[in-house]
Amino acid sequence: MPTIIVEGPPISVEKKRELVKRLTEVASEVYEIEHITVLIKENPPENVGINGELLMDRKRNAPRREK
Amino acid sequence: MPTIIVEGPPISVEKKRELVKRLTEVASEVYEIEHITVLIKENPPENVGINGELLMDRKRNAPRREK
Amino acid sequence: MPTIIVEGPPISVEKKRELVKRLTEVASEVYEIEHITVLIKENPPENVGINGELLMDRKRNAPRREK
Amino acid sequence: MPTIIVEGPPISVEKKRELVKRLTEVASEVYEIEHITVLIKENPPENVGINGELLMDRKRNAPRREK
Amino acid sequence: MPTIIVEGPPISVEKKRELVKRLTEVASEVYEIEHITVLIKENPPENVGINGELLMDRKRNAPRREK
Amino acid sequence: MPTIIVEGPPISVEKKRELVKRLTEVASEVYEIEHITVLIKENPPENVGINGELLMDRKRNAPRREK
Repeated sequence: MPTIIVEGPPISVEKKRELVKRLTEVASEVYEIEHITVLIKENPPENVGINGELLMDRKRNAPRREK
Repeated sequence: MPTIIVEGPPISVEKKRELVKRLTEVASEVYEIEHITVLIKENPPENVGINGELLMDRKRNAPRREK
Repeated sequence: MPTIIVEGPPISVEKKRELVKRLTEVASEVYEIEHITVLIKENPPENVGINGELLMDRKRNAPRREK
Repeated sequence: MPTIIVEGPPISVEKKRELVKRLTEVASEVYEIEHITVLIKENPPENVGINGELLMDRKRNAPRREK
Repeated sequence: MPTIIVEGPPISVEKKRELVKRLTEVASEVYEIEHITVLIKENPPENVGINGELLMDRKRNAPRREK
Repeated sequence: MPTIIVEGPPISVEKKRELVKRLTEVASEVYEIEHITVLIKENPPENVGINGELLMDRKRNAPRREK
């Protein structure tokens, strides 16, 4: 502890590496605790609903809309 | 926020679409907040334990038993 | 299972009763499973960040803004 | 309820069976409640960060180091 | 990691001590990893829904019914 | 989405403000998505187990030991 759980879309390994490194730096400084665990959860667009609509369907209807 | 996380068995995309639409309607009305996120988590039967037994094994032993 | 976890702001008992009843109806119909658990998590405005700002501070700055 | 969520590395079905059986025994005795649900979450080493480093990279650099 | 999250009703400190000790023993043996974190989440009966009804109301209506 | 859940010990409002601001900056840059939600979960030392022992008891036995 602390443990940080990130629920987001799928990302590349390179981005995971950066995310873990930087989230850990922040949490470590704020909590003044060295031992930090990060769990990255990748949610496919068919498993996420935003305002009642699957992310999968939003993308199809409006490809560049902000998620 | 609010964010609704649903831990359940795997389901079809059509059911996900219905689940997200209807859960969002309920949460939106009760909380009186428009912005609702739903995360559907699909758990394979070998990763779920009910009363000490894997769901995978329960199904095998008693195929029609209520989950 | 299924288990529904709702992360939202604090609400009244009456609203919790309605939320549980209606979320369960939806999940029960979609999953075709009777046994549904709902966990309501109440997050105080000082523990929620939206786009980098505590909900507590957003409310102070703009009391009627949509959460 | 109670529901036990285990965030760990991938494991075999045999280990899942043992884990569910034994965690349920413990929780059932301590809570004095029979109905226990266990959800096993398997996190690939590229999705877990320990002290700022992906578990994937730690293993590569020091194969026998304790996780 | 592994991290065990237990969603249950409120319990005494003595029971928390026993729960943590015994869950850790099990997880440590099954995963063959020494470092185990347990987070105990205590849910008041007004925040838990079982089959559409608040646990608070179930207890009132049928005080000895199994949770 | 993305949603970041931080399970840690209790902290001051000032630290929550900093945590939310900085975690959001990181997530926003890595995911290239502006809308980020952070939920800070504060776990009292009697609800956290590290290696089989309540954090509450560890602190009592060894006040300066790393958490």
